[in-house]
Amino acid sequence: MNELLVPRVTMTVLPMLTPNDISAVAEALADGTIDPHNVIAVIGKSEGQGLHNDYGRLFAETSLKGAIAAARGTSSDQVADTVTFVISGGTPGVISPHATLVSQEWVPASEASASPGSGGLVVGRAHTEEILPEEIGRVGQIDKVAAAVKEAMQSAGITDPADVHLVMAKGPALSQRGIDEAHSRGNSVVTIDPGIGPMGSMCWSNDGAALGIAAALGEVDRRLISDAVVREDWSLYSSVAITSAGGEKRRGEVIVMGNRLDSASDIRIGHGMTADFADTGGVIAALKDAGLDFEYIPSDADKARIVQVFAKFALPGTNVLRGAHITMLDDHEAHHVAKAVGGALVVSVTGKPASFISGGERNSHMGPPGANPVAAVIRR
Amino acid sequence: MNELLVPRVTMTVLPMLTPNDISAVAEALADGTIDPHNVIAVIGKSEGQGLHNDYGRLFAETSLKGAIAAARGTSSDQVADTVTFVISGGTPGVISPHATLVSQEWVPASEASASPGSGGLVVGRAHTEEILPEEIGRVGQIDKVAAAVKEAMQSAGITDPADVHLVMAKGPALSQRGIDEAHSRGNSVVTIDPGIGPMGSMCWSNDGAALGIAAALGEVDRRLISDAVVREDWSLYSSVAITSAGGEKRRGEVIVMGNRLDSASDIRIGHGMTADFADTGGVIAALKDAGLDFEYIPSDADKARIVQVFAKFALPGTNVLRGAHITMLDDHEAHHVAKAVGGALVVSVTGKPASFISGGERNSHMGPPGANPVAAVIRR
Amino acid sequence: MNELLVPRVTMTVLPMLTPNDISAVAEALADGTIDPHNVIAVIGKSEGQGLHNDYGRLFAETSLKGAIAAARGTSSDQVADTVTFVISGGTPGVISPHATLVSQEWVPASEASASPGSGGLVVGRAHTEEILPEEIGRVGQIDKVAAAVKEAMQSAGITDPADVHLVMAKGPALSQRGIDEAHSRGNSVVTIDPGIGPMGSMCWSNDGAALGIAAALGEVDRRLISDAVVREDWSLYSSVAITSAGGEKRRGEVIVMGNRLDSASDIRIGHGMTADFADTGGVIAALKDAGLDFEYIPSDADKARIVQVFAKFALPGTNVLRGAHITMLDDHEAHHVAKAVGGALVVSVTGKPASFISGGERNSHMGPPGANPVAAVIRR
Amino acid sequence: MNELLVPRVTMTVLPMLTPNDISAVAEALADGTIDPHNVIAVIGKSEGQGLHNDYGRLFAETSLKGAIAAARGTSSDQVADTVTFVISGGTPGVISPHATLVSQEWVPASEASASPGSGGLVVGRAHTEEILPEEIGRVGQIDKVAAAVKEAMQSAGITDPADVHLVMAKGPALSQRGIDEAHSRGNSVVTIDPGIGPMGSMCWSNDGAALGIAAALGEVDRRLISDAVVREDWSLYSSVAITSAGGEKRRGEVIVMGNRLDSASDIRIGHGMTADFADTGGVIAALKDAGLDFEYIPSDADKARIVQVFAKFALPGTNVLRGAHITMLDDHEAHHVAKAVGGALVVSVTGKPASFISGGERNSHMGPPGANPVAAVIRR
Repeated sequence: MNELLVPRVTMTVLPMLTPNDISAVAEALADGTIDPHNVIAVIGKSEGQGLHNDYGRLFAETSLKGAIAAARGTSSDQVADTVTFVISGGTPGVISPHATLVSQEWVPASEASASPGSGGLVVGRAHTEEILPEEIGRVGQIDKVAAAVKEAMQSAGITDPADVHLVMAKGPALSQRGIDEAHSRGNSVVTIDPGIGPMGSMCWSNDGAALGIAAALGEVDRRLISDAVVREDWSLYSSVAITSAGGEKRRGEVIVMGNRLDSASDIRIGHGMTADFADTGGVIAALKDAGLDFEYIPSDADKARIVQVFAKFALPGTNVLRGAHITMLDDHEAHHVAKAVGGALVVSVTGKPASFISGGERNSHMGPPGANPVAAVIRR
Repeated sequence: MNELLVPRVTMTVLPMLTPNDISAVAEALADGTIDPHNVIAVIGKSEGQGLHNDYGRLFAETSLKGAIAAARGTSSDQVADTVTFVISGGTPGVISPHATLVSQEWVPASEASASPGSGGLVVGRAHTEEILPEEIGRVGQIDKVAAAVKEAMQSAGITDPADVHLVMAKGPALSQRGIDEAHSRGNSVVTIDPGIGPMGSMCWSNDGAALGIAAALGEVDRRLISDAVVREDWSLYSSVAITSAGGEKRRGEVIVMGNRLDSASDIRIGHGMTADFADTGGVIAALKDAGLDFEYIPSDADKARIVQVFAKFALPGTNVLRGAHITMLDDHEAHHVAKAVGGALVVSVTGKPASFISGGERNSHMGPPGANPVAAVIRR
Repeated sequence: MNELLVPRVTMTVLPMLTPNDISAVAEALADGTIDPHNVIAVIGKSEGQGLHNDYGRLFAETSLKGAIAAARGTSSDQVADTVTFVISGGTPGVISPHATLVSQEWVPASEASASPGSGGLVVGRAHTEEILPEEIGRVGQIDKVAAAVKEAMQSAGITDPADVHLVMAKGPALSQRGIDEAHSRGNSVVTIDPGIGPMGSMCWSNDGAALGIAAALGEVDRRLISDAVVREDWSLYSSVAITSAGGEKRRGEVIVMGNRLDSASDIRIGHGMTADFADTGGVIAALKDAGLDFEYIPSDADKARIVQVFAKFALPGTNVLRGAHITMLDDHEAHHVAKAVGGALVVSVTGKPASFISGGERNSHMGPPGANPVAAVIRR
Repeated sequence: MNELLVPRVTMTVLPMLTPNDISAVAEALADGTIDPHNVIAVIGKSEGQGLHNDYGRLFAETSLKGAIAAARGTSSDQVADTVTFVISGGTPGVISPHATLVSQEWVPASEASASPGSGGLVVGRAHTEEILPEEIGRVGQIDKVAAAVKEAMQSAGITDPADVHLVMAKGPALSQRGIDEAHSRGNSVVTIDPGIGPMGSMCWSNDGAALGIAAALGEVDRRLISDAVVREDWSLYSSVAITSAGGEKRRGEVIVMGNRLDSASDIRIGHGMTADFADTGGVIAALKDAGLDFEYIPSDADKARIVQVFAKFALPGTNVLRGAHITMLDDHEAHHVAKAVGGALVVSVTGKPASFISGGERNSHMGPPGANPVAAVIRR
């Protein structure tokens, strides 16, 4: 008789002094801390300028793939096929470059530590179908991402969207090649700006993915979604989406993180939402939602239980903050500053510089206007 | 018989949408909110890149001088002679461009509201003697600044250094002209880098001023100070100094802010010190020291009593933060990011974007290594 | 009997060490070099980052207005009404900050030096009607600019478009306020990006103006122009347009420069077109067209006759230069680098750093794809 | 009886679309265009910001090492030991990212094509001894580099310094680790600024190397060199040095390129020197010195014979260019702009974007003040 198997997820945060510093990762893979064959995702921050031509990010991703390939005794291509990589470029301010290795194995249910009521982390993954350039930032992308999110939920064994606390999606952005391709088919594209500015393709792609997640989780009624609402109707959003895009991609990749009662994981996830760029409340809410029990600020003992925080700090849609005029939207380094501010908000609460702080896009469907999503993983 | 006169200081924080937007200032000077003849200092933040060639800063200073001159019916030169201007360029992130107009008048002691025990704000000012280029970052500058600090304390009627919570000093930095001048006298200069980098003249000048303040206040024993300790022995520092420098200046200007028991001011000052770039504790300490009474975080009622916060966020001397490697010192935009992070730390506590957040220099004698000084003014 | 009056234009290039350094301008206005009442235009370059929030540019413009107002004994507002200012921010590389004061007076035809065959410089000016935000980058703007160009030609007494060698137009760009205004009228705008990127409003506005100039001069058949061709059909362009835009403007200003046989000016204008960002041929062509006679490179005597060069270096539409991949379009500092490269091309030929080198927009209707317009004024 | 062997050098310039695009290099190594075992040096430009933490540069170097290793069937470490890599980060403006593969083989003298009078290219290489942090920018470094240059000349079989037209040297810069190391030995260092600014370690190291080259070639009398003259006495310089530095290096690497009468190479090298940042004369001089025969500007046939140009554009020591004030030294992007200007000067003459244009340091001992060295390789 087969015993029931349940997932056990571990998350290991490892430092990278440079984009090609894989020493800590290689050691953890070699010394038994992490079984290289159980790694299903690598989520990290790398030093760089964080724009579409940030080669620090690609260098880090290439180096990390090589490290896992070496540990598995296989090729980087095989690793790319079996491990989901979400590397975000740019570590301004207090953000420390790092890689979070996510491992998942299936263990007998009897091994799962009894977890009273709350459940533990599970992770599901899926790929979207190919997303055409002309579909980016439109219903075409949205529906393909939504389908992948449902598939990823299923692979995680999560049925209730309320159990999902984070969906990371990484998909294609528009490149000149993609634009030309769409035009050659007689199709238009949403923008010809490949960048991260107000009309940038990274914004359109990230928002298409966010609405796909919102639709899949029922946060937004699919019938309300059309091409016309994307980057227009900001009342439609997901509270658990952290999405990103790269010009070189053809398909989207989706990671769903949630809690399941029968999970054998020793860790657990929760989420929150900051109100604006001066608010640490969303960080605190995420920690509490994950299960950390404190009133105002976490104690050192509380902080010791924090495994990782994932947050996205998109730029607000306005230069007004709490009634005052700020200059963020006019700042040539806005993409950089958004992360620096977000990092300060998170790290001032958690004390942990090696957090995943992404951002810099213009106002997004990841949360209501001005708000930003935060997810926290803590040790149960 | 003459009645005893005591100082009454008011501080009015006014928005500036652009460096030359003086509409709010002009209105406050015209409608009786502020008597233009009582203005003794203007301390502000302007939009710009915050480097030595930031013309947003100079444009703001020029515009503000013009506004006060117009209200006084005099010339900008006369205003420059009687009002101390400390305008800091760069408002990244959540910092709102603004001008804080400081007025001081002398009123009969009987008009002073009884202030139980604590005292109210007084402001003193002084100029240094001319500081030669070859004296910058050396004992020459330090002693001249120290003398001016003592003079400013005296003008404020403060005798106990413990009553001083903020000393702002603005002095000359090295320009190419100054360097040539020193060389023509056969004298060396501390650096030939006019900028804000690790060997930048702005760092040397700011640190010379900080040590002058520390010596005047007895924070550092003058006998321990020699040219050799400047930017070398970081155990020597002031806890209340916020200094800055400009290549066009010949003399230093000093503003001392402290509390005096017989002050007629309705406002009061306190100070604190952050531990590092991820710490809001120093902001909280400054607010409490000024007299705000709360345990963990200020309530909305508490925040309503905050008049202004002045803080300096110099870059740390190391890329290690709480055991993690950060990349701040390698960041080409470090001067900008330092302010963005500092602004997030302050505004996340106070909720007020129009705060004075300066910074971006390399590790300084303004506080111990990694720490940064914060002063807060609250309504009593 | 009235003698016939003919225009005499002078152009004086004066250095500005900083955006508010008006010492050379003030001296020239005071010592009789330039009669302040004859000044009709000020065209200059100021130190700054050259983006929409470059306050160095506005500081320079404000300072120059003040200098002329002082010399005229009037107000800056009066100067703004009677003098056309075209100040371009950003002096990277070999470009020297400066102001070119253009004066025009009417003198008896008998005073005009006989000018065999070629004619001398005349300058015409006009304002457009108000251009609404929803008209920017569309036929609405194009037709209003075209009308103003015709009016300016008339005011210059030029009837043959072939005699026009430079049309500078400065008009409104989209600001957030303008976008909101259009939306409140139920109208769309061409873009929501206020900047200078591929979808930036500065590009749309500059190109709308360029097509207006092209239509007015007959370079493009007006019937070929519709909203659909703007920034789409690059075969439509002007060879003599240098346009720019500012978010604060409501109307466009147009300056036409050409030659007229009966002009009393001692100077003369010509134009050329570079082939790409590595070509100095267009500079050479402009100098020759203006009347400088040399074969390969101008001699020192030739150079001494050059009064001023005006050039626009818009970024090309492609990252391919002479068959090789370049990275200009991906460069976060592309707006800055475009001017630096353009400045090197011009100054390496002329030897004069105080040239008017504007640019940084994405591919434009100012010249065919990759090309850039150059106008040169020389002493006859 | 052994026939005399003589060197035959080939130089192949291959495009790289991104720092990790090794497709053209791999193809040339695979299809017989280049024998991977003959490659002795790779000199290239990569996309990036060109500062000390430019990971595009390191990514390119890593990728190129991997390509050669794969073609040789060996490891990247073996390649690093046998091939000299000089990759310079930053391709602003018209510079195209590329790699120049330098191969040298020894062939029977009889195979050498008769070359009347002029001689062909030979390349010599050498390593310096370890250079300690406290030696950088001082006589210690200078003498070690000088020794290596002499060794490299010997390995190239060049005895007369007049036959040397280019010496590239790459050595250690100061890192925080190196500074700490020197201090722990009780030794001082020349600067604590690791960067490229006026007091930056990259300037000191590059200048130490340049003086070492000058001493070895007899351009400067060794007896005139002391620590005191480095970055102080600008009358001491080399006309053929192009040097660079990296914080991770311990030893210097030297490549000497010159002509030898018995060389079997089909290519030949020459050099020139620009007068300032607006001068193309040095480029033209280098092409002529290499053997290209033209009067004013090279024809298309001349250009077809150009194999590669190597140039260094250090920032001038002054903001005065041809009597006009420029703002280059105050530009936050000066390191980037210097290359953009240099690239425009070179490519406007040669028409070849894939040229080696390095630069951005402050005024250097590579040429007299304001001047910059250029070397050109042409087909005989």
